[in-house]
Amino acid sequence: MAEDSRRGSHTKQTPLPHVVIIGGGFGGLQAARALGKAPVRVTVIDRTNHHLFQPLLYQVATAALSPADISAPIRHVLRRNKNTRVLLAEVTGVDTEGKRVLLGEHGEQSVPYDYLVIATGAGQNYFGHPEWARYAPGLKTLEDATRLRRQILLAFEAAEMESDPDRQRALLTFVLVGAGPTGVEMAGAIAELAHKALAADFRNINPHSARIILVEAAPRILLSFPPELAEKARRALNRLGVEVRTSTPVEAVDENGVLIAGEYLPAKTVIWTAGVKASPAGRWLGAEVDRAGRVKVNPDLSVPGHPDIFVIGDTACVEEKGQPLPGLAPVAMQEGRYVARAILQRLAGQEPAPFHYVNKGNLATVGRAWGLLQIGKLRLAGFLAWILWLTVHIFYLIGFRNRVLVLFQWAWAYLTFQRGARLILYPERADSREAVPLAALD
Amino acid sequence: MAEDSRRGSHTKQTPLPHVVIIGGGFGGLQAARALGKAPVRVTVIDRTNHHLFQPLLYQVATAALSPADISAPIRHVLRRNKNTRVLLAEVTGVDTEGKRVLLGEHGEQSVPYDYLVIATGAGQNYFGHPEWARYAPGLKTLEDATRLRRQILLAFEAAEMESDPDRQRALLTFVLVGAGPTGVEMAGAIAELAHKALAADFRNINPHSARIILVEAAPRILLSFPPELAEKARRALNRLGVEVRTSTPVEAVDENGVLIAGEYLPAKTVIWTAGVKASPAGRWLGAEVDRAGRVKVNPDLSVPGHPDIFVIGDTACVEEKGQPLPGLAPVAMQEGRYVARAILQRLAGQEPAPFHYVNKGNLATVGRAWGLLQIGKLRLAGFLAWILWLTVHIFYLIGFRNRVLVLFQWAWAYLTFQRGARLILYPERADSREAVPLAALD
Repeated sequence: MAEDSRRGSHTKQTPLPHVVIIGGGFGGLQAARALGKAPVRVTVIDRTNHHLFQPLLYQVATAALSPADISAPIRHVLRRNKNTRVLLAEVTGVDTEGKRVLLGEHGEQSVPYDYLVIATGAGQNYFGHPEWARYAPGLKTLEDATRLRRQILLAFEAAEMESDPDRQRALLTFVLVGAGPTGVEMAGAIAELAHKALAADFRNINPHSARIILVEAAPRILLSFPPELAEKARRALNRLGVEVRTSTPVEAVDENGVLIAGEYLPAKTVIWTAGVKASPAGRWLGAEVDRAGRVKVNPDLSVPGHPDIFVIGDTACVEEKGQPLPGLAPVAMQEGRYVARAILQRLAGQEPAPFHYVNKGNLATVGRAWGLLQIGKLRLAGFLAWILWLTVHIFYLIGFRNRVLVLFQWAWAYLTFQRGARLILYPERADSREAVPLAALD
Repeated sequence: MAEDSRRGSHTKQTPLPHVVIIGGGFGGLQAARALGKAPVRVTVIDRTNHHLFQPLLYQVATAALSPADISAPIRHVLRRNKNTRVLLAEVTGVDTEGKRVLLGEHGEQSVPYDYLVIATGAGQNYFGHPEWARYAPGLKTLEDATRLRRQILLAFEAAEMESDPDRQRALLTFVLVGAGPTGVEMAGAIAELAHKALAADFRNINPHSARIILVEAAPRILLSFPPELAEKARRALNRLGVEVRTSTPVEAVDENGVLIAGEYLPAKTVIWTAGVKASPAGRWLGAEVDRAGRVKVNPDLSVPGHPDIFVIGDTACVEEKGQPLPGLAPVAMQEGRYVARAILQRLAGQEPAPFHYVNKGNLATVGRAWGLLQIGKLRLAGFLAWILWLTVHIFYLIGFRNRVLVLFQWAWAYLTFQRGARLILYPERADSREAVPLAALD
């Protein structure tokens, strides 16, 4: 690949230092943006072509938004940074001795770096039961979201065709494992989908009778919020018809349901939002990781023994006051901007001050027009908190087009109780048409 | 499946006549809507859950719109017709003796009918070369469109990573086979995508250098339009940078390109829009079909020998003045409304008058803000025709939400030259990451 076009007027001089950023999520993109006008060359590598606004992924999974509404091509977001190139490729390792990022199944291609920023995010954590992933998919990518959307909508279609009441009940039972913000928001959204959006459209089943069960191992939901706000959220979920079961660890998952508190609950749709496991960056580096696979980094977010490598976002374990920072977009974004500055300071011969996270607050939403908010000592629950949730999410969404599209679709959903993206698509034509049992048709 | 809920107050009387409609496209949906308040029971069967606005499918394939913007759940569209149920199922045959529609791979389920309307549409016609379908996909479903979108966007990504100039040129060569409205609109859209929307986003390739070639076997493009309008469209395509080759039949297609006029043209993306082949309804019925597999129907659109079965839309060959009617949405819609009326007339003991198609005109668009229009003797080409094209398409799109979303995205694309849905999604995670060759990265 010709490097010349990027070096510009520097072609005849020493090449500019090369910063490679792996991952175009919240952390990686902020780092790339902060380096966009700096005297460095930047390469952003991602295995997808798009930045994804993960906090709204549950709205794609519940047919409220389209995938393109919450994503933007990384290439396009960074188009004005003339020192930056974007590669669509899968990283398979890092050669820390040779200072190269390895690509391709056997690392047959590589990209050399002077500084490396690893921002590869996290996947679901099944806590030692990877076999559950088949039956209880997680929600981390747009592919996950469209697959879940298909599964949820097909459950109603199959129930409509089903004459056996037990099988029908299992098809209309939705279990969410893990009551963090994603689990809570997803439970509210499925409840509204079933009880409002689909209610008039079926003839044999009553979507109102769908059961949505939110299961949490801890004694309460939303551990990241103050207890009294979490309690209000629990009551809001109850009002939406969601059953909340706390102190209830999931003991087993199979294709027909879940085992919780010694009771087997038949359920055709089980969704896993119970925990995250960092991407394998720790393995690439041979670095020390915590239980969730996150790399334990220095106060300047560099990796012990590798001052030229930084790890940020969900891939890093950053402790402040003895507590690891949570896996939230604001944390990743602040870390991304910090490492960009730290790299430039290093290049200027300065030593960066330690990273410090500024907690601007905590937001979540439960169904239509009801939100939770905690900023410092301020605590709010209800409509106003939802308006603030909405404002913040629209503000951080990338691109004017996406902002208008999402805002319009939220307004439309708010007014009509409908969901606009109720689309069942079959990625491979042959595979899943049989998913609808053709039972007792007449 | 319990029928009682649909019979309502008629439970104790003779059941109402049962009209089964196969296919929720333009024809089937119009028939269902026209029967929505009539004293019949209606069952609509479709193998997808959505009605698809096919005329805008090319805009999904070229990243201008999202799949959900041009589709609507059939169930939702018909929710107010209390005499109507919707089944998501694949029809595999018709038992004309037993008056039953067969479902499932081996016809193990069935739906009895009193009247049957077949509106199952058409697929691509490869004119005796089904093996070309692999290398030159068509554009008939949302799955086709998202797959093509992925292929087109990946071609640019792979070209960016490619150091061999010949392979790079093949990756940036797009061949469209067939210059009907879909081929013409698609060629214009790919040209704008390459030359405008993507231009600033790449570093190694110049998307401006992409070649878009529209190949047509007939002596001119857009045979359904008057020659002078077609000539104007050809010039509009040239202005967009599309090469138009008429009188040029495609002789062969393989994974690396096409053979046209004895010359092998290396091209990684070949798109087939050259002709349609009706769905296998003729085979189900044992009826006489034309060369494209369309069932030859009576003047009242019923099948010879089967007065209780009607075939409409792309599945039917309806002749007027010795010419078969074209496979257009307005034809299917008029036929759908006609058969609904014809069935009700039959039930009332009347004989329906023969179907007559009212040609309201012909519309097409070439790229941004340029359209073609023919209404009777009126002929228009340019901006005004585009505005009319736009108005008609927004009007016929189902649902207020879809209308607003599409209109906004068109306005945005018009003003910014951008495409909002540039999303590469991998339906099966494992399969296609390798689609990007990792050549010569540094």
